[in-house]
Amino acid sequence: MRASILTIGNEILKGRTINTNFSHIGRVLTFAGYDVYRGIVVRDDPAEIAWGITQCVGFSDLVVTSGGLGPTFDDMTVKCISDALGLPVETNAEALSMIKSKYLAQNLELTPERMKMAMLPRGSEPLPNPVGTAPGVFLQYRGRTVIILPGVPSEMKAILDSIISRIKVRDRAYYEDSITLHGVMESTFAPIVAEEMKLAGGSVYIKSHPVSFELNTPVLEIEVSASATDDSAARNLVETTLKRLKAKYDELMNGKTLR
Amino acid sequence: MRASILTIGNEILKGRTINTNFSHIGRVLTFAGYDVYRGIVVRDDPAEIAWGITQCVGFSDLVVTSGGLGPTFDDMTVKCISDALGLPVETNAEALSMIKSKYLAQNLELTPERMKMAMLPRGSEPLPNPVGTAPGVFLQYRGRTVIILPGVPSEMKAILDSIISRIKVRDRAYYEDSITLHGVMESTFAPIVAEEMKLAGGSVYIKSHPVSFELNTPVLEIEVSASATDDSAARNLVETTLKRLKAKYDELMNGKTLR
Repeated sequence: MRASILTIGNEILKGRTINTNFSHIGRVLTFAGYDVYRGIVVRDDPAEIAWGITQCVGFSDLVVTSGGLGPTFDDMTVKCISDALGLPVETNAEALSMIKSKYLAQNLELTPERMKMAMLPRGSEPLPNPVGTAPGVFLQYRGRTVIILPGVPSEMKAILDSIISRIKVRDRAYYEDSITLHGVMESTFAPIVAEEMKLAGGSVYIKSHPVSFELNTPVLEIEVSASATDDSAARNLVETTLKRLKAKYDELMNGKTLR
Repeated sequence: MRASILTIGNEILKGRTINTNFSHIGRVLTFAGYDVYRGIVVRDDPAEIAWGITQCVGFSDLVVTSGGLGPTFDDMTVKCISDALGLPVETNAEALSMIKSKYLAQNLELTPERMKMAMLPRGSEPLPNPVGTAPGVFLQYRGRTVIILPGVPSEMKAILDSIISRIKVRDRAYYEDSITLHGVMESTFAPIVAEEMKLAGGSVYIKSHPVSFELNTPVLEIEVSASATDDSAARNLVETTLKRLKAKYDELMNGKTLR
């Protein structure tokens, strides 16, 4: 099952905000059994959000978006996604009641900016926001699932946590582990990685990450990951490959300090 | 001038690596006068890289990519970008000499994996990598500029630093600053932000970021940014707007502890 992540916000494109939401969502979806296929970052702009969601629903079983759910003029994600998908937007009674109770508890009135957060695409389900006010949105669209989350990290995480059991891919487990190798350059170890990938025939994925400078004191992290029908099968694939890689590294280094 | 950023790597989509390269590039390009328009993250996969670069060159004056320049089997960015743009790939003599000198200095031979890093699209210019081995690539393509950088952050940063003066947009300066407001909710301040944006008529951009929980102790950061023909003009626009926002906040809060 393919997933994609759409994050919305000028502050991300400008680099003012590091996109930790993206990595958190990617992590959660990966361990929920999805192949996170593509990520898109767009500005707070109706045409851009429309482009982003159209791209994402085109190639994904699941789309998770983050950003643009709040009360300000540039919080336009729900409206733009609805328009792009051709869904009418209307006040969602359940969402309105969630928002109302939050503000009334603080003796604050329900202004138009606050009520805007209850305007959802028809047929969608508001997801309670235990941390802030804007509810998330759960939407089924032409066989795809679209989950719209706020951009405030604590709110995004809390809502995503609350629905992960509903979107988890059945009979699909992901496992990963890594080893750190000293004194070997990525370019030296590259043929071994390629050979092991070939031997594994697609059941595991091996990726090397140079941790320090290649021409100084090379430190290389080798990440191995696998997906299988259950946890122990995935884990077994990863551990077997790591053992083989470690043995090949020992053989390669036999007496040498740099390769 | 529009820029876009393409980052390549499964580890980013899986959330194993936080995409700090993306924010660094976004920051540098913003201060170099570009509107960073879209960001795309794709897997280490030829079709995906081709899709990503095709999207990016379609809507940008400048495309900066990061990731996939190393010596391993899944470092395929240069080849895939070249293929997607219809450019033949060939050994670049200058790049080969850069790589050769790095390895020979360590008494290491030039293996096929190492020589691969000198295979560049015809007509491109290798950018020296002062930190690692794989050179960056500078490419002019149908009126667009494409800059291909490694994924190792220290290498990416060093190469980007070395070319920023060449890609800086002339007569275009960016400035931003922010104020932090206590005791006011984003939804309360939203109409003030909207009003100020209207008054500024597009010359400044105002964005509010809730820093802590909206229904607890609200702390709101208001970011104001502007682009103009020179630094002092951009700065003046931002400071004038910040002063007005601060005055409106003081008026709003007059005696109140929560709004």
